[in-house]
Amino acid sequence: MREVAVIGIGQTVINEHWDKSLRELAGDAVLRAMADAGLDYFDGLYVGNMMSASANNQQHLGAYIADWVGQRGKEAYRLESACSSGAAAFRSALIAVASGDIDVAVAVGVEKMTDSPLAEITASLATAADADWEVSQGVSFVALNALIMQRYLHEYGWKRSDFANFSINAHANAMHNPYARFHMLLTEKQFEEAGVICDPITLLDASPIGDGAAAVLLVPIEKLIYSDDKPIIRVAGSGAASDTIAAHSRKDPLWLTAAERSAKDAYAQAGIDHRSIDFFEYHDAFTIMAALSLEASGFAERGQGPRMALENEINKGGKIPVATLGGLKARGHPVGATGIYQIVEVVTQLRGQAGEAQIDGAKWGMAQNIGGSGSNIITHILTNAD
Amino acid sequence: MREVAVIGIGQTVINEHWDKSLRELAGDAVLRAMADAGLDYFDGLYVGNMMSASANNQQHLGAYIADWVGQRGKEAYRLESACSSGAAAFRSALIAVASGDIDVAVAVGVEKMTDSPLAEITASLATAADADWEVSQGVSFVALNALIMQRYLHEYGWKRSDFANFSINAHANAMHNPYARFHMLLTEKQFEEAGVICDPITLLDASPIGDGAAAVLLVPIEKLIYSDDKPIIRVAGSGAASDTIAAHSRKDPLWLTAAERSAKDAYAQAGIDHRSIDFFEYHDAFTIMAALSLEASGFAERGQGPRMALENEINKGGKIPVATLGGLKARGHPVGATGIYQIVEVVTQLRGQAGEAQIDGAKWGMAQNIGGSGSNIITHILTNAD
Repeated sequence: MREVAVIGIGQTVINEHWDKSLRELAGDAVLRAMADAGLDYFDGLYVGNMMSASANNQQHLGAYIADWVGQRGKEAYRLESACSSGAAAFRSALIAVASGDIDVAVAVGVEKMTDSPLAEITASLATAADADWEVSQGVSFVALNALIMQRYLHEYGWKRSDFANFSINAHANAMHNPYARFHMLLTEKQFEEAGVICDPITLLDASPIGDGAAAVLLVPIEKLIYSDDKPIIRVAGSGAASDTIAAHSRKDPLWLTAAERSAKDAYAQAGIDHRSIDFFEYHDAFTIMAALSLEASGFAERGQGPRMALENEINKGGKIPVATLGGLKARGHPVGATGIYQIVEVVTQLRGQAGEAQIDGAKWGMAQNIGGSGSNIITHILTNAD
Repeated sequence: MREVAVIGIGQTVINEHWDKSLRELAGDAVLRAMADAGLDYFDGLYVGNMMSASANNQQHLGAYIADWVGQRGKEAYRLESACSSGAAAFRSALIAVASGDIDVAVAVGVEKMTDSPLAEITASLATAADADWEVSQGVSFVALNALIMQRYLHEYGWKRSDFANFSINAHANAMHNPYARFHMLLTEKQFEEAGVICDPITLLDASPIGDGAAAVLLVPIEKLIYSDDKPIIRVAGSGAASDTIAAHSRKDPLWLTAAERSAKDAYAQAGIDHRSIDFFEYHDAFTIMAALSLEASGFAERGQGPRMALENEINKGGKIPVATLGGLKARGHPVGATGIYQIVEVVTQLRGQAGEAQIDGAKWGMAQNIGGSGSNIITHILTNAD
């Protein structure tokens, strides 16, 4: 397979974009990625989206977006694996280019969630879980995460407040990201006093939904004629794994087997281990998922994820900076777009374009996108190293 | 890229499967394909499905199905491009194996449409079209095809009855397909007298929805150790192209540019042209689409598709047999599954396993799957030739 580089990135601010249609959001991101790459075409378009069928009465987003950006005729599909749809689209684009089948791929993630009543969005998010054996019992997607967190607190003896820095750090980092949904600092007191959504998850453990789109453009390194001063960002490792769709079917619901497996595959491909990773764009949809990701990906011992938050090891300058541009918690979580936002942020850091949020000397960045309650996890490692 | 073979096929009868869940249908097809291939595992699962979000309150079908068939942990996604979702899944599986990324891929198409009220299915089918510029005007998916057919009759001077043999031939062929939805012969009189759905489309121009699943298993030919007596069925050509999502945006709504483009790519890859194709599993969702596919794929002159039906050139023994096991019209059209049913049927013919429906001496088979009103078209050519 050919080596592949990401040479273009584009994104919209995550917000309630009531004045923009689904196609406008996606188009803005795609056209920005193409402009950033200095290319006015692509060969294939891979769209990450979870809920446009219900939220926008629109499917068939491949043709829909290719048409809108003036690339009629090009191969174009949608990839869906719940909240990891974005990374699935990126991985499909990657394999299409690596295989030699096409030379220029764009992966775009887009989601427009705020036009719909919240009850509908809650129902739509629940389609990531098992309709027959979870959702029919009345459990929402937040409730599933709350059950996992409850068990985690019980099993390992942490308090809710021990998770505070996952959110505080994310909000602090988002202050320097102009595309983030939130620009407001959080305090421990605010975290402590936040309203409970589903015990023990409060509003400040949970990431916000939103409307947004992000896109990246990929080419084979062998065909790269690079004329500007941006460093080449190579995709060094890619791994994908699934797990049971229902959380209760897992031998250990507190261990993200699919994160472990996909991270191991990505590390092996990149020829490194977790100690080489300079920053980690993880999937902090809920603080419990932040902890579990750190553990399964090798950064923390089993049951010890919250310690990394407590001891500021996840902060800028810490052992493994995470959510460096706000993460799902503060950049926002337009579900099917999130996986591409993560890649855009990894590239931004590796290019040294992250401004105040820049991780000094970042050489290896990792992104991990989670679908469902850990049912589908995709890990990518990118590098500016030769 | 590596050469790829389809070594396993599996399918369920298309029907109203009220006694089977979505996962059971998909699982039946996948397990049959694995058994047919003699393998008890796969590395990656690619699911074609259009409407499980609305029809079954279930998304995330990759993990959902991998889990059900005992392949927890494997990479697994859903591909969606409306009614061409099946072929999109097959193409993704093909590229994953051809690239060298994985060795054993399963592509499964599944759709369970008959649990829902028909009005909901009609709304869901319309998500293949442009929500803002077509559907919001009140046009359903059948109505879009009716507008195209109306224009076609006007432009080229055909009568509705000239399309009769598209449906009659399909129903005749389905008599020999135990997996087909319909086993009943049609007469010209029945076709003439069929009730109008949306003028000029009648019930007997339109393919039926249904519940069903079909699966194929792909491996690289270089790793093939074939011990049984089935011939090796190689994927010789694969092409995919999009077009405008809205039919009214096309310069010529009576020409399937995406069919022409994807067929040309597939012919070029296979190193043949349309004259070498022995049979054609086309996308006869409506008789007008049958005519347009024959024209854009090179089998008929522009505007002359119906002549091939009138002169029996599409029948068994004719110039280019189509819908050899019933096509969408009589085998049935469980939308996201159709593209995989087509591949299963091409393999069945190329293996010489089609029984009474067998095309003698079939060496090259073609499948073409259409999403929307021609907005996304994917063409595959398979062969048993060396």
